Amino acid sequence: MMHSKYKVTKFKKDKSNQLDDLVSIEEPLEISINFDQNNKPITKILSVTMRTPGNDEDLVRGFLFNEQIVKNIKHISTIKSFGEKVGQYNIQNKILATLNNSQNVNITKIKKDFLTNSSCGVCGKSSLDALEIIKKDKTSILEPKLTKEIIMLSPSILRDNQSEFTKTGGIHASGLFSSDGKLINIKEDVGRHNALDKLIGNALIKEQIDPRRQFITCSGRLNFELIQKVLMTNIGILIGVGAPTSLAIDLANKFNMTLIGFVKSDSFNIYTNNKKVIVD
Amino acid sequence: MMHSKYKVTKFKKDKSNQLDDLVSIEEPLEISINFDQNNKPITKILSVTMRTPGNDEDLVRGFLFNEQIVKNIKHISTIKSFGEKVGQYNIQNKILATLNNSQNVNITKIKKDFLTNSSCGVCGKSSLDALEIIKKDKTSILEPKLTKEIIMLSPSILRDNQSEFTKTGGIHASGLFSSDGKLINIKEDVGRHNALDKLIGNALIKEQIDPRRQFITCSGRLNFELIQKVLMTNIGILIGVGAPTSLAIDLANKFNMTLIGFVKSDSFNIYTNNKKVIVD
Repeated sequence: MMHSKYKVTKFKKDKSNQLDDLVSIEEPLEISINFDQNNKPITKILSVTMRTPGNDEDLVRGFLFNEQIVKNIKHISTIKSFGEKVGQYNIQNKILATLNNSQNVNITKIKKDFLTNSSCGVCGKSSLDALEIIKKDKTSILEPKLTKEIIMLSPSILRDNQSEFTKTGGIHASGLFSSDGKLINIKEDVGRHNALDKLIGNALIKEQIDPRRQFITCSGRLNFELIQKVLMTNIGILIGVGAPTSLAIDLANKFNMTLIGFVKSDSFNIYTNNKKVIVD
Repeated sequence: MMHSKYKVTKFKKDKSNQLDDLVSIEEPLEISINFDQNNKPITKILSVTMRTPGNDEDLVRGFLFNEQIVKNIKHISTIKSFGEKVGQYNIQNKILATLNNSQNVNITKIKKDFLTNSSCGVCGKSSLDALEIIKKDKTSILEPKLTKEIIMLSPSILRDNQSEFTKTGGIHASGLFSSDGKLINIKEDVGRHNALDKLIGNALIKEQIDPRRQFITCSGRLNFELIQKVLMTNIGILIGVGAPTSLAIDLANKFNMTLIGFVKSDSFNIYTNNKKVIVD
């Protein structure tokens, strides 16, 4: 199960169509390991990663090997999905690897990197529960309104104001725009989530945020983590140059956010709440 | 300091040039907070994120706000970079936010998400030390050899074999290739690092890996984390469609890996060890 159907409003050359579109599924996977230490069995949650379901066992094998938890995948005796089947895709989002030959398990590595006080955004959250958004307020269902022209222009305005992208071709940007299409603030980073954190952090200290008159445009793809961060500002429109994931759409939908993806100079897709887009 | 000069060998339409190119800097930032609990000061490392230096204070503000550690950035009293200046860019990679009004700090949130046993690859590692690669073996400096044609073809072979990309336009892929250009294995995921973990996990269980006769091609950009994962297999050539970061180049260089980026149908850039590319 790697993709799912979503309703999308497609604009292209002044025509709009409502149709079903395929979207890549993004779902959390909680990876745990079980091993013996001093003859006692220990179970530890190592990571929650946002993944596309499918090949989960290979993901765990590669993760444990690449993160140097095991030196040889033969030291993994079994890998089993468990937990109740959840969500609209009815899949198991927990997986447990049992490690044999515990003398071969890199316990120092586990202790150093995985049993300490660390995390980073969604990807390292301690359990699936942590993915729940504390925020309860929905964004405005009707405001602000954006014209098609402003939507299609915003990625090129973002690009034109990226001082770093023209130099290296390898850096993401997030921009805060007023609903009439003016760029208010922009920040760049090799990490999409960092560019957005920098933008929001800077806009907050400058007291620039005014949700009912603004939107945010990001380079790249739209995943769960970006939606979660934008929702914290109460800004209710997010525009991206690339594709959204299933979880991004589901989360945007839950909070009335208008999520717009695949924006080009003459076309774009609206994935949720098209009431904020002026179609005529 | 957001970019740096690197030597690159550029191939375009049968001509090669050695020149200086600008690359976006990727460096770890360790984010800590300091707050009072029961009148005792507590300092906790929350996260190590791979970021582009610049606007570090805004990054911390946005991170703490977006991750719901503070409800209002006025609850952050100071943000200070500290630690010795390290690396070739001579920058501080540690930053501490002191939170005031400790009754406003979301301690439950910190305990739940950040003081538990979790991590995810590089991004959630517990300290800068954890970024060090345990692996000591360098990859072969001369083998395998790739022709220009095989390099320029591999991204389109990868794309043609992505069953999901044609459907959704929003999923990354990693492919294992033999040095004569044949695709051996391919895996897809919304996360680049997951696609690579899936590929390596699957290739390991199928006993497909043969470093002196193979290379890996990834969609998207090339960052530190991808290089680290590929190095674990001893495969010494990594090809990407997008730009590399500074840390990706530095790490590849250290282990003799040939790192090739910006691959198009008639051009590509070699960032490290061009001895594995047949130029004539």
